[in-house]
Amino acid sequence: MEKDHIHFMRKALEEAKYAFYKNEVPVGCVIVNENEIISRSSNMVELLNDSTAHAELIAITSAQNSINNKNLDGCILYTTLEPCLMCHGAIYWSKINTIVYGASDEKRGFSRHNLEIDRKINIVKGVMEEESRELLENFFKKIRG
Amino acid sequence: MEKDHIHFMRKALEEAKYAFYKNEVPVGCVIVNENEIISRSSNMVELLNDSTAHAELIAITSAQNSINNKNLDGCILYTTLEPCLMCHGAIYWSKINTIVYGASDEKRGFSRHNLEIDRKINIVKGVMEEESRELLENFFKKIRG
Repeated sequence: MEKDHIHFMRKALEEAKYAFYKNEVPVGCVIVNENEIISRSSNMVELLNDSTAHAELIAITSAQNSINNKNLDGCILYTTLEPCLMCHGAIYWSKINTIVYGASDEKRGFSRHNLEIDRKINIVKGVMEEESRELLENFFKKIRG
Repeated sequence: MEKDHIHFMRKALEEAKYAFYKNEVPVGCVIVNENEIISRSSNMVELLNDSTAHAELIAITSAQNSINNKNLDGCILYTTLEPCLMCHGAIYWSKINTIVYGASDEKRGFSRHNLEIDRKINIVKGVMEEESRELLENFFKKIRG
């Protein structure tokens, strides 16, 4: 039986929890090729002092290194939070076909924009949504309180 | 007298020419803070085998390193080609206020999308447009011929 979305989202959530522990906005990502994880990352914006160091972007770069191919056609990206415009653009260039995400990001998620993308990207949303959202909410409570 | 847009776009064009020489899609970028260049990059997608390695994204990361601050508020980004969605998203997160670009990218430029961005980014386009476009056209002629 193929490992399912829950299985891989749980791995992405582990990355997000690691980010939480490191005082980063808790978002995690894994990229899967032929049912195996080929890269994983947590958000590293604070660690690297780099506003482009979102989990998805790092995971894409890492996946391309991992398989020594910048074409990730056939891969699935799992992320605990809906990708932002930057990460969605990065997904576009990587040729990843499917995005699976947990919590929605109403303010900065890509889906609030009316994008006209010239290739089909499948979107599966709401996988382990509650866990992903709670982690984010707890983080913002922690830093504000 | 302040150095003007042409001056800095010429520097970005030097980066684009370097990319051309290295068989990369010729796009170059510089980021300017208080009238001084704090980072520069050419497109490095082929060199790094990384589809996220656009000139703008690398220049943003480099600028944040350069001034040891991920907030680039007040900076101007010069790029020879209209930024794509990914790079526009990266510019958004960096808090760069002004984008100056040369050639338009009708297929993959950000401006073809109807983006609803929650902060104002000033756009100046068409600076040294012809030089930037010619360089791109010559590149695609070279690789196709």
